[in-house]
Amino acid sequence: MVHLTHLECPRCGEKLDPTELQNLCPCGAPLLVRYDMEAMKKDVTRADLETGRTDMWRYQKMLPVPTEDIICLGEGMTPVIEAPVLGKDLGVGQFLIKDEGTNPTGTFKARGASAGVSMAKHLGADSVAMPTAGNAGGAWAAYAARAGMDCFIAMPEDAPELTMKECDLFGAKTYLVRGLISDAGAIIKRAVERYGWFDVSTLKEPYRIEGKKTMGLELIGQTGWEMPDAILYPAGGGVGLIGIWKAFEELEALGFIGSERPKMIAVQAEGCAPLVRAFEAGERDSEFWQGAETMAAGIRVPKALGDFLVMDAIYESGGRAVAVSDAEIMEELYKTARMEGMFICPEGAATVAALRKLVADGYLGADDRVMTINTGSGLKYSYVVDIDLPVLDIDDDIEL
Amino acid sequence: MVHLTHLECPRCGEKLDPTELQNLCPCGAPLLVRYDMEAMKKDVTRADLETGRTDMWRYQKMLPVPTEDIICLGEGMTPVIEAPVLGKDLGVGQFLIKDEGTNPTGTFKARGASAGVSMAKHLGADSVAMPTAGNAGGAWAAYAARAGMDCFIAMPEDAPELTMKECDLFGAKTYLVRGLISDAGAIIKRAVERYGWFDVSTLKEPYRIEGKKTMGLELIGQTGWEMPDAILYPAGGGVGLIGIWKAFEELEALGFIGSERPKMIAVQAEGCAPLVRAFEAGERDSEFWQGAETMAAGIRVPKALGDFLVMDAIYESGGRAVAVSDAEIMEELYKTARMEGMFICPEGAATVAALRKLVADGYLGADDRVMTINTGSGLKYSYVVDIDLPVLDIDDDIEL
Repeated sequence: MVHLTHLECPRCGEKLDPTELQNLCPCGAPLLVRYDMEAMKKDVTRADLETGRTDMWRYQKMLPVPTEDIICLGEGMTPVIEAPVLGKDLGVGQFLIKDEGTNPTGTFKARGASAGVSMAKHLGADSVAMPTAGNAGGAWAAYAARAGMDCFIAMPEDAPELTMKECDLFGAKTYLVRGLISDAGAIIKRAVERYGWFDVSTLKEPYRIEGKKTMGLELIGQTGWEMPDAILYPAGGGVGLIGIWKAFEELEALGFIGSERPKMIAVQAEGCAPLVRAFEAGERDSEFWQGAETMAAGIRVPKALGDFLVMDAIYESGGRAVAVSDAEIMEELYKTARMEGMFICPEGAATVAALRKLVADGYLGADDRVMTINTGSGLKYSYVVDIDLPVLDIDDDIEL
Repeated sequence: MVHLTHLECPRCGEKLDPTELQNLCPCGAPLLVRYDMEAMKKDVTRADLETGRTDMWRYQKMLPVPTEDIICLGEGMTPVIEAPVLGKDLGVGQFLIKDEGTNPTGTFKARGASAGVSMAKHLGADSVAMPTAGNAGGAWAAYAARAGMDCFIAMPEDAPELTMKECDLFGAKTYLVRGLISDAGAIIKRAVERYGWFDVSTLKEPYRIEGKKTMGLELIGQTGWEMPDAILYPAGGGVGLIGIWKAFEELEALGFIGSERPKMIAVQAEGCAPLVRAFEAGERDSEFWQGAETMAAGIRVPKALGDFLVMDAIYESGGRAVAVSDAEIMEELYKTARMEGMFICPEGAATVAALRKLVADGYLGADDRVMTINTGSGLKYSYVVDIDLPVLDIDDDIEL
């Protein structure tokens, strides 16, 4: 049932053995998981994709994990919510929000953690280690706990306190760092060399992408097998966008879709927009963004290891990379809550702000069916919301 | 497709018209929704219950809402997670956790709000009003926003700040009250009389139960149509337990299950245990609990309007009502996180603590397949977790 054949470097073409724990290609690029697509094609039916489990493991035949090693907390099969009021306000034909906030641990990071921890366990790792800006740490700590593995996490001391609590609660050895996520990464790198832990930093192991890929598998089935005209994605490390793109390639190889693709749109913050700068220069590789700053912590990534894979998807699909301001993010976060009843995360709100710009540019409009990925629940970001509510005594009445 | 026939009082038998907005029966009891079970039986197939939508509206044929009035944010179809490590630690044969934390707004309240707001809209209401301890307010505010309805909420000023933020963010007119939820309820009652809003306080409208009923419909399908031996439920208002019990009755009437039932176990806190006191006295009605106090806010309900319905289910199933301490709750909250990677809510943790007592009593044990309902995500209760983490400078190394 598992059709995994090898790991492949998308930069230099090197092939690596998937029966051992692997990190990066010797050339320094992240590795992609490859399958026997002919065998998969014989094995996977339409019914496999449309019925059965109501989590991401419905797609197990397109994933690398044997049944007995699946570490599952109910991740995936998140809803695609039509947002008619907001869509009209934005000026697009149809606006769909895939709401990843209903995952365990409240974000899309659960998908990558489920696939990554499952494979780490399958391949015999007894510990995982990573730096995190917050949400990935919470997710990997949860799945590691469930797998009975040790987990070591380093995070900036200004990361959201809620995610620190998650890591500690799940029993991960959690260290705060007086510095940036890159500094936390350096500490983890030294510790991994010293203690022999398995390094599961973003894209430093190949299976997180496979978990994220399930977003792409789901969204096509959920939209009646009709590709949206555009997909907006808040790109920090960009793993989700890479995964969705990979899903489309594999679905085409299996004959479930044709060669059509949505415009893939990477959304970043004005205070940290290395992919946008690369796009504007027509480059495949991005440059490290100095002084990265935005309240949307998930897209505060100065240089992504998989930047060239994100750029490939953008260029091949006729997509774009767009930057928005923190003020625009907050405005759309409120609008989405009031118009549609959804408390989306700042990264998700960034994609709404980007869409408004793309409609103003005439790039998208009333003829377009547009989907955005809300990568997490706003409940994990409640610190961005301020309140000042009236207080009543028990004998007071509500006066309008 | 909608088989709704009437509303019925389970206390006095009165029948009421479901084509109008209704609150309580004139006798003061909550109303139950009744259907044409013969017509439903002809209409509902096994496939309807096992395939299709991956939210609670899969069960639309057993619900009162016409398709065009469904207000949906992807609620329901929450995972049933097996917890083998914790189950062994507890000493039961199999331990299953139905995790309601993956609902929109992070709790099971989304189900009741989806059904309730949908029907309020269907019947022409343009506003809803309620007192809340927190989570119900967040959920109803979200669904009201999505339905384009006004929402008025009163909550104690010591309710969790996160839920206040939710209500305000979703555009509900939100009032804090220097008092208890009962004081907030009195303020809403006066305002409802004055302004003509539709009162959607717990069990004061009939449709919230129908939303909660879907938990019962789901859990049977998710466990291969084999009833668990016992279901533990944290009972504040008890609506979920009433709903699950109603699901079983209707599934039996449709011929999908027999007359077997799990032992229904209501779990409360030692500081607020009116149902436990009623159970110990063999009574059907509970008495108002003076000085209610527990950190599990969702079960800090001194007197439930539907207490007699909860007690009926307990007695008919050979179940129990059990009280646990706040210290026991916190202990199980940590154990569940570390053993299974799940950040459950204090109310959910209360059921784990209760199960430990019931095993110690010999009431449940190694032969039993036990399910508990985790009513919400721990992410909404992060204030119960304290952390004290080591801080590193960027040149420091992790020392074990």
